[in-house]
Amino acid sequence: MSSYQRYLQYLCRVPSVGLSLDISRMKFTTEWLTAMEPSIQQAYTAMAELEAGAIANPDENRMVGHYWLRTPQLAPQPELTAEIESTLAAIKAFAAKVHGEAKFTDVLSIGIGGSALGPMFVADALGHPATDKMRVHFFDNTDPDGIARVLSGLEGKLEKTLVLVISKSGGTPETYNGMKLAEAAFARAGVDFASRAVAITMPGSRLHKYSAGWLAQFPMFDWVGGRTSELSAVGLLAAALQGLDIDGLLAGAAVMDEATRSKLTAQNPAALLALMWHEGTGGNGLKDMVVLPYKDRLLLLSRYLQQLIMESLGKRLDVDGQRVDQGIAVYGNKGSTDQHAYVQQLRDGVHNFFVTFVRVLEDGGDPLELEPGVRTGDYLDGFLLGTREALSGNGRQSITLTVNRVDARTVGALIALFERAVGFYATLVRINAYHQPGVEAGKKAAATVLDLQKRIIQNLNKTPQSIEELASKASSDDLEAVALILQHLAANGRAIESTSSEKEKGLCYAACS
Amino acid sequence: MSSYQRYLQYLCRVPSVGLSLDISRMKFTTEWLTAMEPSIQQAYTAMAELEAGAIANPDENRMVGHYWLRTPQLAPQPELTAEIESTLAAIKAFAAKVHGEAKFTDVLSIGIGGSALGPMFVADALGHPATDKMRVHFFDNTDPDGIARVLSGLEGKLEKTLVLVISKSGGTPETYNGMKLAEAAFARAGVDFASRAVAITMPGSRLHKYSAGWLAQFPMFDWVGGRTSELSAVGLLAAALQGLDIDGLLAGAAVMDEATRSKLTAQNPAALLALMWHEGTGGNGLKDMVVLPYKDRLLLLSRYLQQLIMESLGKRLDVDGQRVDQGIAVYGNKGSTDQHAYVQQLRDGVHNFFVTFVRVLEDGGDPLELEPGVRTGDYLDGFLLGTREALSGNGRQSITLTVNRVDARTVGALIALFERAVGFYATLVRINAYHQPGVEAGKKAAATVLDLQKRIIQNLNKTPQSIEELASKASSDDLEAVALILQHLAANGRAIESTSSEKEKGLCYAACS
Repeated sequence: MSSYQRYLQYLCRVPSVGLSLDISRMKFTTEWLTAMEPSIQQAYTAMAELEAGAIANPDENRMVGHYWLRTPQLAPQPELTAEIESTLAAIKAFAAKVHGEAKFTDVLSIGIGGSALGPMFVADALGHPATDKMRVHFFDNTDPDGIARVLSGLEGKLEKTLVLVISKSGGTPETYNGMKLAEAAFARAGVDFASRAVAITMPGSRLHKYSAGWLAQFPMFDWVGGRTSELSAVGLLAAALQGLDIDGLLAGAAVMDEATRSKLTAQNPAALLALMWHEGTGGNGLKDMVVLPYKDRLLLLSRYLQQLIMESLGKRLDVDGQRVDQGIAVYGNKGSTDQHAYVQQLRDGVHNFFVTFVRVLEDGGDPLELEPGVRTGDYLDGFLLGTREALSGNGRQSITLTVNRVDARTVGALIALFERAVGFYATLVRINAYHQPGVEAGKKAAATVLDLQKRIIQNLNKTPQSIEELASKASSDDLEAVALILQHLAANGRAIESTSSEKEKGLCYAACS
Repeated sequence: MSSYQRYLQYLCRVPSVGLSLDISRMKFTTEWLTAMEPSIQQAYTAMAELEAGAIANPDENRMVGHYWLRTPQLAPQPELTAEIESTLAAIKAFAAKVHGEAKFTDVLSIGIGGSALGPMFVADALGHPATDKMRVHFFDNTDPDGIARVLSGLEGKLEKTLVLVISKSGGTPETYNGMKLAEAAFARAGVDFASRAVAITMPGSRLHKYSAGWLAQFPMFDWVGGRTSELSAVGLLAAALQGLDIDGLLAGAAVMDEATRSKLTAQNPAALLALMWHEGTGGNGLKDMVVLPYKDRLLLLSRYLQQLIMESLGKRLDVDGQRVDQGIAVYGNKGSTDQHAYVQQLRDGVHNFFVTFVRVLEDGGDPLELEPGVRTGDYLDGFLLGTREALSGNGRQSITLTVNRVDARTVGALIALFERAVGFYATLVRINAYHQPGVEAGKKAAATVLDLQKRIIQNLNKTPQSIEELASKASSDDLEAVALILQHLAANGRAIESTSSEKEKGLCYAACS
């Protein structure tokens, strides 16, 4: 079979969103696809149960309902349908009011993880300086220096800045800290915060109570996980304020949802993606997924997919409690730019990856001819096709997703496509895609550090004390943690570091005042 | 040995740039380090020869002299020393003149790969809206839509925009195409381009000739490779224009160069890094390097390192011509943000990585207390320490680089540290770090696509023709390539797609006019 015959044989099209999936450059055989068919049929069944309202996240006893966001009538209870529809209507009404009053020019969105990666991806994929109705800025960390830099870009504009605080529980420290730093900046500028602040959170949460007197509140639902929340108020409010086509986002996702409910595997791009991930990684994360969209607007797609894929699939235990250490590492930025960074390694080097190309057919921009019949966009497409060919020539596998253009419908469709592929893949490898137990360990470890820091600060005094002395007073036997915390305190003028004259004591620390 | 003892035993400090390297959470033994000592001594020798002007890139018969850029008196010939010094003086004089005249407010930097990743990393790491003397914008691709978006942000400002075109040979298509699109935009706006354009290129190159009448020209040297060119005119001119401390960048790099010339391995952080990469990857790329700086300003470090490390190390053949398929995959963005994206997988999932944390001791920004003794920066540092601990607790290895702050000296030192670590590692695994033979294959494949496209366009006419017919007329037997090229032409109104009434013909294409 020629490569063109193989291309035609396996090409999967979703004409309603102008998307196609080419898996011909993956090394599966027809026999393997046939052998996998019973497993993928199981994945269809599991997904149908999830969409019907089954408890798909047993750890948290939660339904998983992000698919209902774009087809509200599918929600298993009429109250949920009503909640989705009324939230969407409220978002649109709020954005229209803000645009109509023209009191605000800028949006400051405070959130992290699912409350930042989706909004940032969509803002960058669909935004344009000439057409955006508001300019969107992000706090997505608890770095006071990084936050000060964003605030510096808003110097003199806080009066006209609408602040979104996005946290399901209100207990995410980075988001809470960012909010407090924003409040402080508004206070310094003499600008009222509450009348410019909007909370997106679960009814009853700590943030919900905290934001009672704010300009507005929008609900997050317990049946939407952070990494699949872009098409809830989390993503839609900022997008609507920016002036993006949120109906297009939802419609694109709904169309893709419908297409990926097909039980005909050859016609279901999410199923084919999941199968190719299995083929590419051995069903065991043995290879990385390099995401290479050849379009500047899709630069942040890989960061979005890192969370969606890695947090969903990176699991220690399977559904039977067996140790599996699953996952797929995802990275990439954009082509042809990344060709200059690491196609050398992809083509010639360690064979530990497969590529997912994203090809965008419409060039956009200036159709300038560099020579007769050759435009700058021809180079972009030529580099994609050439790299795909060069990689194949050296036995490196690739998937190619082709879309007509990067618009709201396409972006919605891409989000829905990868969401469902992740769900299918999780069934194939028998893991729960909808919890994140490992995140808790890191949070607990950080809380331990902060607790220890408090006890160290309480025990600093005018007399320089050794690390051992301070550890003992702070009731810790973790000398390394005590030493590292003291380094940080000393660097920030909160402890005075000195070298003891008694050599065995090493570094000593005293209080500053 | 306690973890604190191990931490202290292996901690490597470079006090002159406030940097330390902690390798204690990697699983090497003292015996292994001893066994590797002869190999790392060979790496010191090879590096000394390189620094003395040996032909380190035999493919291109080139010296590799990026270390001379920050210590010009080390260059093996006095003419090179003079060239480096005069170029630096010219950069400073030019930037001072531009700042003094105040005719320009914005810089548009056009380049890709080494001519973009370093400049973008440094601009973001050291820039600040309140202190930057000029605002820097980048074209780093041949995406006409992406370029139009950057130009839209410069609407009405072209008069005051200085354009840098950066290409060693002048033959890089993305850079050439970006330049042509910039020229067209200036022409549309009625603004003269040449009097605002600056070329950074090799004397005698195509771009050097093309730019004869421009505002200025700065030289690139044949002994500086793209991925190590940040501290040449490539990176320094844009940085100087932005108002960044280029003397600090050079001084930080020079200090690190000096520290990493030590043949005492325990005191040489570049040698220890290279050894830890070997330990972490088995000397075979078996694990990925996840780069996690806990500081917003260092977000682009991983993209910079992707090129420096992957293009240098991703090699098919070793120096003896044996097939080795070497390399190390590099990815990461920033903490604690990325914890919400994939620490779930790092901690619990597939064990295919080691982490390089970058810890910044000074918080900067607003020292707001969230509660007594607890600041937002404490959370940032606590998340780093907590994640390092949680990963160790599950057998995942990490390196921690600690710096006092992100300033020009530190950034220069980081660049120099990783440059030399790459050089050492290449010697350890016996590959040439200074060529990139695989890049050529991708370029050739892309050129083949563009040639084929030209022949297809020549053969389009008013009569719809099948893919087979057009392939035959274009003298190609690659039906897949012909079909994909026609898709792209049709999507951009350059061919008319129709379905033939003769079923076996499938899609047909005609010319548009």
